[in-house]
Amino acid sequence: MNYPSRLIEEAVNAFSRFPGIGRKSALRLTLYLLRQPGEESQQLAKAISDLRSKVVYCSSCHNISDEPVCRICASKTRDKGTICVVADLRDVIAIENTGQYTGVYHVLGGLIAPMEGVSPDQLKIQSLLDRVASGEVKEILLALSATMEGDTTGFYISKKLAGQPVRISTIARGIAIGGELEYADELTLGRSILNRVPFGG
Amino acid sequence: MNYPSRLIEEAVNAFSRFPGIGRKSALRLTLYLLRQPGEESQQLAKAISDLRSKVVYCSSCHNISDEPVCRICASKTRDKGTICVVADLRDVIAIENTGQYTGVYHVLGGLIAPMEGVSPDQLKIQSLLDRVASGEVKEILLALSATMEGDTTGFYISKKLAGQPVRISTIARGIAIGGELEYADELTLGRSILNRVPFGG
Repeated sequence: MNYPSRLIEEAVNAFSRFPGIGRKSALRLTLYLLRQPGEESQQLAKAISDLRSKVVYCSSCHNISDEPVCRICASKTRDKGTICVVADLRDVIAIENTGQYTGVYHVLGGLIAPMEGVSPDQLKIQSLLDRVASGEVKEILLALSATMEGDTTGFYISKKLAGQPVRISTIARGIAIGGELEYADELTLGRSILNRVPFGG
Repeated sequence: MNYPSRLIEEAVNAFSRFPGIGRKSALRLTLYLLRQPGEESQQLAKAISDLRSKVVYCSSCHNISDEPVCRICASKTRDKGTICVVADLRDVIAIENTGQYTGVYHVLGGLIAPMEGVSPDQLKIQSLLDRVASGEVKEILLALSATMEGDTTGFYISKKLAGQPVRISTIARGIAIGGELEYADELTLGRSILNRVPFGG
């Protein structure tokens, strides 16, 4: 495609790098921006720029945060003896929305996926083992997608924790096999946390 | 939804203002950005910021441009005697991609749509009349959508140009190349029969 302006072309190129956004959608977004007041573009540009340069990860659970220790880890009302292990931020948001979970989290930053070149040492698994080794933790609740990657990751973690005085559980398979956590409805996801079962059971 | 970080929330808010992007898609885009190298975010932020603050509209055809006069209007090989009237930039790109048009353009910036509060004086219609009045123009080719708004706009322009020594034409309506006759709507098929052209022409 030939764009009449270099600025348009650059914006289209930038937008179309997003997953699921092709060049026609990117042009649509670009033209939408041009029709809006200038402040809206500046707001979006600032949000994007700040996001990458200012975002902080919680030193304990590795969730995205504004502080060195996230709101959940810093809360006095959350049970530090239970750690819910999830792949990423979206899973934390989904579980928090159920209002059923009172423990803390551990965000792995992905799932073990040899086909995509994601090995265990690229995930925050060692720091999870360190948290368990500190002795305060009573239960590890695995809340991973019911996919091959999720199962592999859960199995790997449970192997690494074998022999530790910690209970390993997994959310109940009320969620359809092959389903993504973030798309589960809140009732099902909440119930699956209440009905968690021993891992491997 | 509760976001663990204000920065995430701001980015999601900004992305979800786009048409067709909901809050879940916006969160997906946000997390995608976080996984990419920092330069990519900065590039996107710059493209968005520059787009709105630096973009220029061609003083002749009102197409988006990098210069006060756009590449097409400035070109010595384009026929200034034929003006193709379109609603917006995407139509210019679509027509340029055909490689069949050698004239210049006039970008109205929309179509007359009383229901949405778009009246003729919000579009670049007066400057089209001014271009015709300058005397150089031989033909106005209306390339507007085959919708009520497109027809209204075309009718309005042709009325305004009545009495001027200029030929007014419109792009042919008919069955798409490769289209099946039986699936064509009756209006289009009827029009294509009325406007039949010599075979092999």
